[in-house]
Amino acid sequence: MSQKPTIPKGTRDFGPEKMGKRNFIFNTIKGVFEKYSFLPLETPTMENLSVLTGKYGDEGDQLVFKILNSGDFLSKTSEEDIKNGHKHLLPKISEKGLRYDLTVPFARYVVMNQHEITFPFKRYQIQPVWRADRPQRGRYREFYQCDADVVGTKSLLCEAEIILMINEVFSQLGITDFDIKINHRQILTGIVEYIGGAGSASNFFVAIDKLDKIGLDKVLEELRSKGFDDASLKLLTPILSQNGNVSENISYLKELFNESESGAKGVQEIEQLLSYLDQFSLKESHIDLDVTLARGLSYYTGTIFEVKVNNVSIGSLSGGGRYDDLTGVFGLKDVSGVGFSFGVDRLYDVMEELELFPKEAISYTQALVVNFGEETLSHHISLLAALRAADIKSELYPDEVKLKKQMNYANKKNIPYVILMGSQEVEAGKFTLKDMVSGTQESLSAEDIIKHIQQS
Amino acid sequence: MSQKPTIPKGTRDFGPEKMGKRNFIFNTIKGVFEKYSFLPLETPTMENLSVLTGKYGDEGDQLVFKILNSGDFLSKTSEEDIKNGHKHLLPKISEKGLRYDLTVPFARYVVMNQHEITFPFKRYQIQPVWRADRPQRGRYREFYQCDADVVGTKSLLCEAEIILMINEVFSQLGITDFDIKINHRQILTGIVEYIGGAGSASNFFVAIDKLDKIGLDKVLEELRSKGFDDASLKLLTPILSQNGNVSENISYLKELFNESESGAKGVQEIEQLLSYLDQFSLKESHIDLDVTLARGLSYYTGTIFEVKVNNVSIGSLSGGGRYDDLTGVFGLKDVSGVGFSFGVDRLYDVMEELELFPKEAISYTQALVVNFGEETLSHHISLLAALRAADIKSELYPDEVKLKKQMNYANKKNIPYVILMGSQEVEAGKFTLKDMVSGTQESLSAEDIIKHIQQS
Repeated sequence: MSQKPTIPKGTRDFGPEKMGKRNFIFNTIKGVFEKYSFLPLETPTMENLSVLTGKYGDEGDQLVFKILNSGDFLSKTSEEDIKNGHKHLLPKISEKGLRYDLTVPFARYVVMNQHEITFPFKRYQIQPVWRADRPQRGRYREFYQCDADVVGTKSLLCEAEIILMINEVFSQLGITDFDIKINHRQILTGIVEYIGGAGSASNFFVAIDKLDKIGLDKVLEELRSKGFDDASLKLLTPILSQNGNVSENISYLKELFNESESGAKGVQEIEQLLSYLDQFSLKESHIDLDVTLARGLSYYTGTIFEVKVNNVSIGSLSGGGRYDDLTGVFGLKDVSGVGFSFGVDRLYDVMEELELFPKEAISYTQALVVNFGEETLSHHISLLAALRAADIKSELYPDEVKLKKQMNYANKKNIPYVILMGSQEVEAGKFTLKDMVSGTQESLSAEDIIKHIQQS
Repeated sequence: MSQKPTIPKGTRDFGPEKMGKRNFIFNTIKGVFEKYSFLPLETPTMENLSVLTGKYGDEGDQLVFKILNSGDFLSKTSEEDIKNGHKHLLPKISEKGLRYDLTVPFARYVVMNQHEITFPFKRYQIQPVWRADRPQRGRYREFYQCDADVVGTKSLLCEAEIILMINEVFSQLGITDFDIKINHRQILTGIVEYIGGAGSASNFFVAIDKLDKIGLDKVLEELRSKGFDDASLKLLTPILSQNGNVSENISYLKELFNESESGAKGVQEIEQLLSYLDQFSLKESHIDLDVTLARGLSYYTGTIFEVKVNNVSIGSLSGGGRYDDLTGVFGLKDVSGVGFSFGVDRLYDVMEELELFPKEAISYTQALVVNFGEETLSHHISLLAALRAADIKSELYPDEVKLKKQMNYANKKNIPYVILMGSQEVEAGKFTLKDMVSGTQESLSAEDIIKHIQQS
C-alpha cells in the first residue's frame, strides 16, 4: 500500500514560476548589496543549542526547532530525567537546533573568526530560518531572511547607505509608493526623560511599538499600568500625535530636548544622517521621521528604521537599526554595528498585488523544437545544438507524439517560439518558426531563426 | 560569563571567498541546466518522516536527522513507550526530519502536483541535504546536491542531453581531463545471465559496485559467498577485465549477448545513445563504456553513468541513471525518468587542486574611496554615488582613520582600485586613482576614473 504524501504544516514547495519570481527578488537584493560592497556569508542550518538558547527570549527558545541526537538518544538519560518532564529531558536528548534568525549566527561567526576578519566587516546573508510558530496566512515555519550588517564602525555613513540601498532595491523592484520611517532610540529615551518617566525606557519602547496595532488609547493604558502617571501621559499625547514633515519634526524635537542630552544626541545623529543623504544627492529619500517608531528588539541602541508600502495592507517590508553590542554575549565586547533586513515573503505578496513582476522573471525556455520522429530527427538535433551554442535556452520534445500535444506543452510552459520542419522544408534546409504570442509563422534557415530569437 | 561559541561537527561556515568560489560552480551548473530547459524547484528543509522513512534502507533511516516535536513532546508518550527504548519512542516524539537527498522530495512533489505538472517534466534542484554520518575529511553532515531529472519519458534523447550537460559544465569549469563512464543495468543483467547466475542480479550489482574500492579478488570472494559458483566466476573474470574503446566493447558485448535478451537490449540502448551524441556533433564525448560500472542505488533500471576526473584522487564528481518507477512508492505508477547529480564539494576540491577558479569568482568590491574626514567628504560621497550609478561595486571607508589602515583594508579585501583626493586636487576636482596590482597612480576626473575602471 502506498501512502499519500504530504508536506509539513507551514512549509512550502516552490515550483518553477514561484522560483522565478522569488529569484527576481533575491537577485535584485543581492545585486544591490554587492554594489554597496557587502560580502556574502552563509552559516549552517543547524547551530548548537548553546549558541541559540537565551538569545530570543523565553518565547523564542520555545520556537526554536530542536534536532534529536542521532542514534540511541536515550542513552544519556535516566528515569529521573524523564519523570521531570520535557523541559528537563530536552538538553539530554538534543544538542542542536535550526537557525532561528541570521543575526545570532552572524555574531557567532564574527566572534569565531575575529582574527581573520577585516573590520569594518560588511556582510550580507540570504538564507532560510525556521520557527515553530503556529502557521497562518502569511506566516510560515520556514522562510527566507535577507540581512546586511556593517560591524566595527559607528559611522552614520552606514545608516545613509542603508537608506540608499532600500531606495535602490525598491526602485529596481518597481515599488514606488513607500515610506522609510526613521527614529532613534535616544529620541525615545529623550521623550521618556521629558515626560518624566526616566528609568522605564524599555517598558516605553515595548508599549510604543504596538501603537500601529492597538491604537493610542490602549498604548496609554499599557503605559499607565507600567507606572507612567497622568502628568507624564498628558505630556506624551501631543508628542505621539506630532505629524509634520522631517524638518518640522526636527525643530519640534530640538525644542523638546533642550534639557535632554540623550534626546539631543538622537536628533543630532538624525540630522547628520540626513546631511549625508543630501550629499549623496538622493532625489526622493522617502524618509519620514516618526517619533512613534520603536522596533521591539531590545538590542537596538541608535538609529532605527522600518519600511512600509502605502495602499497595501501588509506589515513592514524592511527594517533595522544600530546596536552597540552584538557579540558581547559570545565574549567579544564593543562591536558596534548597524544592520537591516528585507522580508522576502511580504515583498513577494506586494509585487503580486501590484502586478510588478516582469515577464522575464518567469520566462525560462525560449524555443521548443518539435519532434517529428527519427526521419527528420538529425536535422532537429543539429538545430537544437546550434540554438544552444548561441546561448538560447531551448529543448527538443523528447518523444514523437502528436503535434497538438507538443504545442500544448509549449503553451503550458509559456515557451514563446516553436520550431517545426515540414517534409518539404527538409530539402531546402529550412524550418518553420512559430511565434506563440502573435501566432504568426515564417520559414527560415537555422541561422535566421537564431538571429530572430536573439533580437526578440 | 560569556561562552565560547562553536559550530556543530560536520557543518561549515562559508565566508566571502568560499562563497564566491561555490557560487561560481553553482551558477555554472544552473546556467547549463536552464540552457537545456530544466526548470528550478525548491522543496522544504523539513519533510514528514512518513515521506522519508523506508526510502534509503535501514542505514539511511538511521542517518536522517529527526526534529523533536514542538512544545511538550512527551505529552503523547506513555511510560511503556520510554521503557521500550529509543526506536519505539521515536515516532511518538518526532514527526519530521531533515531532507536526506533531493530525489525523494522531488518524487513527493511530482505526486502531489501531478495534475498541474506538464510532462515530460524537466526539473533541477540545488539545495543542501543533511546526513547524521560520522564527519570526516571531505564528508560533511550538511552539503549541497545539484540534481536534474526528466520524468515522464523513456526517450534516450534525455540521456544524450545529460552527457552534453556534463561536458558543458566541465568545459565551463575548465576541467578537461575526465571520463564519463557509462553502462546499462540490462548489460549487467545480461552478464549475470551469461555467467549462469540468473536471479541474483541485485547481489551482483552490489558486489561489482565495490570493484574500484576493494579490487577484483575481494569482489569474486563476495560473489562466491552470495552463491555464484566457480564456473560462473571463471566466465566473469575476462568480462570484468575487458578494457577496449567504446566500439570494441560494444562488439565484444554483442557477441557475448547473442542469447541474452536483456543484455542485447542494454547494448542496443547504448548504441542509440551514442548515435544521438553523434548527431549533436559532440567533438569529444569523454565516454568510456565500462561494464564494471554498477552504481549502488537499487532504483536504477536502465542506463547508468558516473564521472571521474583523471590524475586527482577523489571519487566520482557526477553520476546518475534511468529509473522506471520513481514515484510508485507514493502511489503514482509508471513514471519513468532519468536523472543525475553534481557533487559540489568534490568539484570545489578538484578546482582548488587544479587552480581553476578564475580571479573574477572572488572579486567583489572594485574600488575603495579613501576617507579623509568631513572636509573633503562631500567630494568623496559624490564620487561614490557616481561610481555606483555606473554599476561599479564600490565603497567609502566609513571612518576617518590613518591612510595606512585604509590601504591595508583595501589590500586584505583584494580591492583592485583605491581612490584618494589630495588637498591640491580638491580645487581641480580631480582624484588620484591607485592601481593596487601595478602600484601605479594617476590624477583623473571622476568621469575618467569611471571609464578606466569599466574598461579594466
